[in-house]
Amino acid sequence: MADIPPQIEALIDMMARLPGLGPRSARRAVLHLIGKREVLMTPLAAALAEVARGVRNCARCGNIGTDELCPICASDKRATGEICVVEDVADLWAMERGGAFKGRYHVLGGTLSALDAIGPEDLRIPQLVDRIGAEGISEVILALNATVDGQTTAHYLAEALEPAGVQVTSLAQGVPIGGELDYLDDGTIGAALRARKRF
Amino acid sequence: MADIPPQIEALIDMMARLPGLGPRSARRAVLHLIGKREVLMTPLAAALAEVARGVRNCARCGNIGTDELCPICASDKRATGEICVVEDVADLWAMERGGAFKGRYHVLGGTLSALDAIGPEDLRIPQLVDRIGAEGISEVILALNATVDGQTTAHYLAEALEPAGVQVTSLAQGVPIGGELDYLDDGTIGAALRARKRF
Repeated sequence: MADIPPQIEALIDMMARLPGLGPRSARRAVLHLIGKREVLMTPLAAALAEVARGVRNCARCGNIGTDELCPICASDKRATGEICVVEDVADLWAMERGGAFKGRYHVLGGTLSALDAIGPEDLRIPQLVDRIGAEGISEVILALNATVDGQTTAHYLAEALEPAGVQVTSLAQGVPIGGELDYLDDGTIGAALRARKRF
Repeated sequence: MADIPPQIEALIDMMARLPGLGPRSARRAVLHLIGKREVLMTPLAAALAEVARGVRNCARCGNIGTDELCPICASDKRATGEICVVEDVADLWAMERGGAFKGRYHVLGGTLSALDAIGPEDLRIPQLVDRIGAEGISEVILALNATVDGQTTAHYLAEALEPAGVQVTSLAQGVPIGGELDYLDDGTIGAALRARKRF
């Protein structure tokens, strides 16, 4: 746009590349930041720079952190013997918010995808196999998305882990808490019916 | 949340304070940034720091820029004699995107508001009155929002500018381009009818 200082225009363009923000909300966000220069804009710049400098992937599980081991791998409060396999860090955080899993994770870094030419060697699958023996793992819980690629990856992993003699489980599929049958897709209802439990 | 490094948690909290982003989209945005550390996160941190350091309000009109005068006030391609009064910089940018106004602006920095205790002395109204004589202004165009506070401010300004003997106009009200009558509020239809023009 004419007559916007180029530095501000460049900032808006970068903000517009964030997921969830378009050109319009990026403009609003930048004006909001300029209005709160001292209390928000300068600290945000510093926090971004600090994280960009310090963040790294955990050498063991692939989660993000600031040390060689992520806080979860480094914690001695986590149960050993179980690994929960997730696609990415967002899914790991979702599992953590659930608060039910007390073991450690393994972040694949994606799913197998013929379309995007992502094969097993592009994911952290060899590292997962290595961890089974090294950490004395007895159960691998597959917490992959219920998408085609997620389920393809789950089947591949189940086969790849078979020689290790480890128990492989996956999250249950069924009606979400608070879910209304009328709004559920047919596949979910079918899966919930097949997995029905005695009341 | 447990087991997220505190620097990353602090960054998410700051991002969540931007308009248009909540906790969930702030998490997504931060993970996206971490995944694009070199090409987006570090440049964004630098751009934020640069704008936070360099941005200032135009000494004349209140628009934002990096010099004493904003690009619009500094431009010699802008028509003199007309000032368009807007509430804030977002509205100035909206007028510029419209591309129809070739003069200069005056940014009030808000509207009069009894509720928020914002009086004339809290806005850049004295500076506007001073500009009328100093710049030989013949017309002041009020481009204020069609809200109660915006229209209160417009009426106040029309009275305050009367002694200066300047022509005061305001944006037309009517049916927006592409607007469908069935979806318009009654007030807009009434205003458009009263301001009807020979076809």
